[in-house]
Amino acid sequence: MTTTEREQQVLDRIERARRRRAKVREERITLSHGAGGKSTHTLIEAVFLDAFRNPLLEPLEDAASLTIGDARLALTTDSYVVSPLFFPGGNIGDLAVNGTVNDLAVSGARPLYLTAGFILEEGFPVEDLLKIVESMKTAAEAAGVQIVTGDTKVVQRGKADGVYLNTAGVGVLTRTGLGVATVKPGDAVLVSGPIGDHGVTIMLARGELDIDADLESDTAPVHDLVAGLLAAVPGVRAMRDATRGGVATILNEIAKAAEVAVVVDENAIPVRDEVRGASELLGIDPLYVACEGRIVVVVDGAQASDALAALRANPLGADAAVIGRIADDPPGIVLLNTAFGGTRIVDLLVGDPLPRIC
Amino acid sequence: MTTTEREQQVLDRIERARRRRAKVREERITLSHGAGGKSTHTLIEAVFLDAFRNPLLEPLEDAASLTIGDARLALTTDSYVVSPLFFPGGNIGDLAVNGTVNDLAVSGARPLYLTAGFILEEGFPVEDLLKIVESMKTAAEAAGVQIVTGDTKVVQRGKADGVYLNTAGVGVLTRTGLGVATVKPGDAVLVSGPIGDHGVTIMLARGELDIDADLESDTAPVHDLVAGLLAAVPGVRAMRDATRGGVATILNEIAKAAEVAVVVDENAIPVRDEVRGASELLGIDPLYVACEGRIVVVVDGAQASDALAALRANPLGADAAVIGRIADDPPGIVLLNTAFGGTRIVDLLVGDPLPRIC
Repeated sequence: MTTTEREQQVLDRIERARRRRAKVREERITLSHGAGGKSTHTLIEAVFLDAFRNPLLEPLEDAASLTIGDARLALTTDSYVVSPLFFPGGNIGDLAVNGTVNDLAVSGARPLYLTAGFILEEGFPVEDLLKIVESMKTAAEAAGVQIVTGDTKVVQRGKADGVYLNTAGVGVLTRTGLGVATVKPGDAVLVSGPIGDHGVTIMLARGELDIDADLESDTAPVHDLVAGLLAAVPGVRAMRDATRGGVATILNEIAKAAEVAVVVDENAIPVRDEVRGASELLGIDPLYVACEGRIVVVVDGAQASDALAALRANPLGADAAVIGRIADDPPGIVLLNTAFGGTRIVDLLVGDPLPRIC
Repeated sequence: MTTTEREQQVLDRIERARRRRAKVREERITLSHGAGGKSTHTLIEAVFLDAFRNPLLEPLEDAASLTIGDARLALTTDSYVVSPLFFPGGNIGDLAVNGTVNDLAVSGARPLYLTAGFILEEGFPVEDLLKIVESMKTAAEAAGVQIVTGDTKVVQRGKADGVYLNTAGVGVLTRTGLGVATVKPGDAVLVSGPIGDHGVTIMLARGELDIDADLESDTAPVHDLVAGLLAAVPGVRAMRDATRGGVATILNEIAKAAEVAVVVDENAIPVRDEVRGASELLGIDPLYVACEGRIVVVVDGAQASDALAALRANPLGADAAVIGRIADDPPGIVLLNTAFGGTRIVDLLVGDPLPRIC
């Protein structure tokens, strides 16, 4: 099949999907709608995309690409409702700064300016707010961004859970044309380090598992890691930070947007023993567990080892690995070659085993 | 006093204020911290400004002014926690779109792109979410903006109040140099229409007052009103939309930022009878009651009638009025010439008589 045939095929499939309008079957919002998996995707398509439909929103990338004057910009937003607010390795403040920095970075933008919108619960200790804000300051400095505008609302006791925090971010695009829809058969799939640290850390911090583990959230800004990769590898197709829904969700988004098969090798995926152990207790595949400082990268297959070297050259990518490749068939599907020699489909997450992870 | 002397004096005062570091005296967050008045100002200065201090945040205008490439941009954010979510004249959806459109417009920017961050409560009816999103769509179309990126989180039942909604916005600056710090003695102060409609509508919608009134929120996008004013009047110094804390808060911000006196005439301020009546029952001055489609404008005194004509030329400004003027003394103070011939100081709001108005 030629590139043009493939592109036409993708456009046809998008058009068919568009006519097959998504519909939220539930009458009420459930936690699953916020989990990043199947329900979230349906909600976004049936409610938000259907109403706001425009060419900038349509790609559903982590950030929208805008042109204003001669400036090519990326714009993104995320709200944070993580519980608990403080956890080993970070708190809601640096998580919110790093998260928005990362959404800009993986879109090919140099992060520049952030907004901060606080929703505070009446009775929240001012001392804790000061700690959160101090972490935001430190994280912003580390990522080279400025928090330039903000907003504070307060709701009555019981009407929030301490603090909810929204950050939006603007960056300048240094590389355009990136995106999951540009992925092609023959490309290689990499992750920048061990997966699931953040999600398991949050579950342990809630005391819901009766185990001790020497584990910290991987929350970190990936702008330098991304810049190094883009400088070294011209054939980067797409990057995503693997947050809610974990690496499995990103792989599914790639498979569906590009109408390709994503084939990954379980043995190649870096997972810490602590994360593997806790995931087993939770009955969840580490592939679905959120990271907050790890990226999934798809590159031209011929440049896989260059990409691996570029990632490993940065401390945040020291344990990067090639975990799989893009194939033609079956389109839209993620296949996992298991550690035991079998093959299984890795679908989008159903339900929400890890609520309020970010 | 020459302009240079005045500017130096203002800079000196700012420097003195900076050395006199603000401090939050309370150990815990109260509703007052979200009311837009004295406590909010202290919280912003002591917590946010102190940590994030940078020249773009420092002016504390409704939007930050940024330069990226050759583009001059405005960036703003607001979270919305209004209760009830639906009220006569609008709902949290159009309120959130109009509010961010307005923050951009009064900063001298043409609003272009919005983000939307939803925090949903488990159990929230999908039908209500659809209504809110539909209102956002209609409001975005009316304001000529696109919602280009978003985020959805879900929190457990009881951990939010249906929906909290954050919008951030980017616009392109068409007029620079606006700002409350540029206001000068001799300038005129205008409002674009009757004040307090939104705040009183919300209180009535809560059923906390046992009165019927034929009143609607004034939520509306003011971008056209502002564009008409800026096109007609070169001497516009500053504009603000009078939301939380009402017109009185804006006037105080002007008085303090420019170190001038703001002298307003109670008789000149347009207030609907329903708003005046309800405000009396609530024991609150309509000057402190939020509007969501009204702007306060300061212009060169010689251009006051041009400004009035420009505002009145737009349906949203049909009842615009000149309500006062800027004087030298006493600096930092807002004086009201009352309907009864007296004069009193209008200070920043203390406490929060109208929680969760936006």
